[in-house]
Amino acid sequence: CEAEEPGSSSKDSLSGPTIDIFGYLQPQYDYFFTDGDQDNTFRFKRARVGVRGEVLDDFSYYFMLETSPFIGSTGDAYLMDAFITYNADNWARISLGSFKQPFSLDVSTPCNQLKTIERSVVADQLISPQRDFGVAVFGGNKYNRLNYSVALMNGRGLGVKDDNVKKDITGRATYKIIRNLTVGASFRYGYPIPNNNEDDRTTYGAEFLLELNRFAVQGEYIYDEGAYFAGAGGGCGATPIALGKERDGAYILASYDVSEKFQPVFKYEYFDADINIKDNLGYSERMTLGFNYFVNDKVRFQVNYLANIETVVNVNNDALLTQVQVRF
Amino acid sequence: CEAEEPGSSSKDSLSGPTIDIFGYLQPQYDYFFTDGDQDNTFRFKRARVGVRGEVLDDFSYYFMLETSPFIGSTGDAYLMDAFITYNADNWARISLGSFKQPFSLDVSTPCNQLKTIERSVVADQLISPQRDFGVAVFGGNKYNRLNYSVALMNGRGLGVKDDNVKKDITGRATYKIIRNLTVGASFRYGYPIPNNNEDDRTTYGAEFLLELNRFAVQGEYIYDEGAYFAGAGGGCGATPIALGKERDGAYILASYDVSEKFQPVFKYEYFDADINIKDNLGYSERMTLGFNYFVNDKVRFQVNYLANIETVVNVNNDALLTQVQVRF
Amino acid sequence: CEAEEPGSSSKDSLSGPTIDIFGYLQPQYDYFFTDGDQDNTFRFKRARVGVRGEVLDDFSYYFMLETSPFIGSTGDAYLMDAFITYNADNWARISLGSFKQPFSLDVSTPCNQLKTIERSVVADQLISPQRDFGVAVFGGNKYNRLNYSVALMNGRGLGVKDDNVKKDITGRATYKIIRNLTVGASFRYGYPIPNNNEDDRTTYGAEFLLELNRFAVQGEYIYDEGAYFAGAGGGCGATPIALGKERDGAYILASYDVSEKFQPVFKYEYFDADINIKDNLGYSERMTLGFNYFVNDKVRFQVNYLANIETVVNVNNDALLTQVQVRF
Repeated sequence: CEAEEPGSSSKDSLSGPTIDIFGYLQPQYDYFFTDGDQDNTFRFKRARVGVRGEVLDDFSYYFMLETSPFIGSTGDAYLMDAFITYNADNWARISLGSFKQPFSLDVSTPCNQLKTIERSVVADQLISPQRDFGVAVFGGNKYNRLNYSVALMNGRGLGVKDDNVKKDITGRATYKIIRNLTVGASFRYGYPIPNNNEDDRTTYGAEFLLELNRFAVQGEYIYDEGAYFAGAGGGCGATPIALGKERDGAYILASYDVSEKFQPVFKYEYFDADINIKDNLGYSERMTLGFNYFVNDKVRFQVNYLANIETVVNVNNDALLTQVQVRF
Repeated sequence: CEAEEPGSSSKDSLSGPTIDIFGYLQPQYDYFFTDGDQDNTFRFKRARVGVRGEVLDDFSYYFMLETSPFIGSTGDAYLMDAFITYNADNWARISLGSFKQPFSLDVSTPCNQLKTIERSVVADQLISPQRDFGVAVFGGNKYNRLNYSVALMNGRGLGVKDDNVKKDITGRATYKIIRNLTVGASFRYGYPIPNNNEDDRTTYGAEFLLELNRFAVQGEYIYDEGAYFAGAGGGCGATPIALGKERDGAYILASYDVSEKFQPVFKYEYFDADINIKDNLGYSERMTLGFNYFVNDKVRFQVNYLANIETVVNVNNDALLTQVQVRF
Repeated sequence: CEAEEPGSSSKDSLSGPTIDIFGYLQPQYDYFFTDGDQDNTFRFKRARVGVRGEVLDDFSYYFMLETSPFIGSTGDAYLMDAFITYNADNWARISLGSFKQPFSLDVSTPCNQLKTIERSVVADQLISPQRDFGVAVFGGNKYNRLNYSVALMNGRGLGVKDDNVKKDITGRATYKIIRNLTVGASFRYGYPIPNNNEDDRTTYGAEFLLELNRFAVQGEYIYDEGAYFAGAGGGCGATPIALGKERDGAYILASYDVSEKFQPVFKYEYFDADINIKDNLGYSERMTLGFNYFVNDKVRFQVNYLANIETVVNVNNDALLTQVQVRF
């Protein structure tokens, strides 16, 4: 019920209009194992607050501000996800407004339910702009084997009007093969460059999620080619990396519930900013080792050690991130 | 009860302090029939959220943010209407804070109850700054024949302190001649230029509203002369047009309730940015043809075709605007 | 219960998660008795809105936006105080996030409970950045003789990450000698300059608060030496004054409750931006004469005449400030 996904099924549709305040705070302390001075800082990751609810006739709304000064262009509060949803049918929930591109399991996971503090580098770098204005159709729920989402979007990201004639199309479908195993695929085709109706971009993704009692493992591969626009930024404040003509990346993430409260996690990932160049500086690997500690449903501690591995020239850039999250 | 007007009568004043969350979302899809590439974009018109309520002793408050990235200077969320009201009497409700200038029926109509997606060009261009800091007195309610409002305001608009010594005065009065016909007049005198206590500006307006069963028609004429400051911007994100010494404009707007849900509308309007020049490029006419579809009290679809008519040099600049509004 | 202090004791901890909307509006009219043109303006002092509440297991949250265009760098709404508190014990309430430095009675008084419209010049100028990211521990409540607070903070202020390696430490302790008299001391040691791990700053403060039936008097002295960074700004939108190597200031504030509603106040204060220079232009004295009128618990009128006294070159810069505050 905490899903940020615009087409998520409404909790209940009994009575009249509803209005719920919701949000979460993610204060963080980061320590960087760099050469020389070891930078460290208190900060916020995300700090979100909003309202959502239902109005009659299967219409609902979602209205959320990002107020963390470290996401977005200016540091001030701004409108992030905001959409109106018409719940025509379980197979056709239509949302209009601003929301995340329906691409990849990692991007689709609500920001307050990620198992590691950072999303995968490949998702942050290639599924950009992560949020956009558009219209989307969502189908299926957690009891259905098939779920799908398709969106027609500006392709420019938040805060600006589209200034080319073309729209971008993005879609994702997942299928529960057996009770424990879900596989999925994503697709995007668009025109990412402002004032340019010629240069296109194509992106594919494949994913799986295996849940065995207390053990869970998920993985994704994303391939992307064609034009791109660095000004669109990376996901959730990530700094965009310069890309070649073709680029890809993948991650695998495993977690084990030692108890209801304590959940160690491990993630291995790589990102290649230019497939056609061997030993390029845009290639990186990262291992994330950490744990989640759930005080209860609303309070989570997250500690992650990020071991960044450079294969060409080694750089001291490991980091220890610690976060407390309260949801309301 | 949805009025944004600062001096609107409070809904009830029974018990202790109240606090209500309110707002509305206006996602929109616009298509422009221009020469060459036909721009089109998903966007937001307005996206507002706020709180309002009463505290004891006839004091109430109103606190609203605009979060649409397409209104305001930076794209971030900012304080729009915010005021404290002392309800001394039906003939003296005193508001202090930021609110719209009490001038013209079109400007005074709450932004979520406009019959067309765009306000009239003349109101957006000449009643600028549309919102300002100041103090106002409001009198009358919907049962009274007479209603009036008078405001003393900075004249600089939101986000800045006044930097000249003079204040602006704005006022509006309406009178219900018969049950179906209300007429009104507005007046403004001020010093619009920053750091300038010499150059003044005078504005007059006249209006009528005729409501005959399912048919309604309203019209306004606004005349404006003297100094102006382009930096004050137009209403609700409108781009300011360069003005001559004297300028005027008018509109007439008709609607017919085919059913409770379906309401076709038609508006004709003109705006003359410089009365003293014949055939000037600042003269424009516009016809708006469209309809409102009310799913219910909270959800409205609005479709408008804007036929912009240039009398001197024809330009292809018609537009089709489509909007969904959810209020909460 | 209106305290903005992050470590304030929670009102009650009976049941499940809570969420309260809270805030206040401070519209203001200021008149300046300057030479030549006498500037005057309607404006907002503060306009704050937020949510706060408790989640289980002694965790609470506080999430507040400043929306006044006259505080902060851009005029837009931004995250001001936001923190998660773990209430381990009355002697160890731990807060993580952004909050005011725990230094001085004047700074620690919530912005909606100040007895004069302006804080003391010395607190606004020397306890800067007034708000910062960090972690703090608070101990004691209003029934205890001793109260203390200690914070480890970035030292850079809101909106930016720390970019030096060092953290700042700030602390305050108060002790109720007798029922009517509380004394306190504050301390801060930090590295205020960006990208600089060498130049430090040390600040001391001493305070007292005497409450005799209807009469109350409080006073503070603050001494500050070493490096400083003008870019950190002053408190609540105050313009930073250039400082010498050593600087200090003090104030004494008296109030008398004529009735439950009417409270005259008087404040005398001085600020010396450079102790080592005699007759410097950074030395100023100010007398504030005014009153508070409480319509009720939620509505307050505040009128202050500020007599600014220059000892070297006299300048006409007195001011009359009038404010209405509604809390919700």
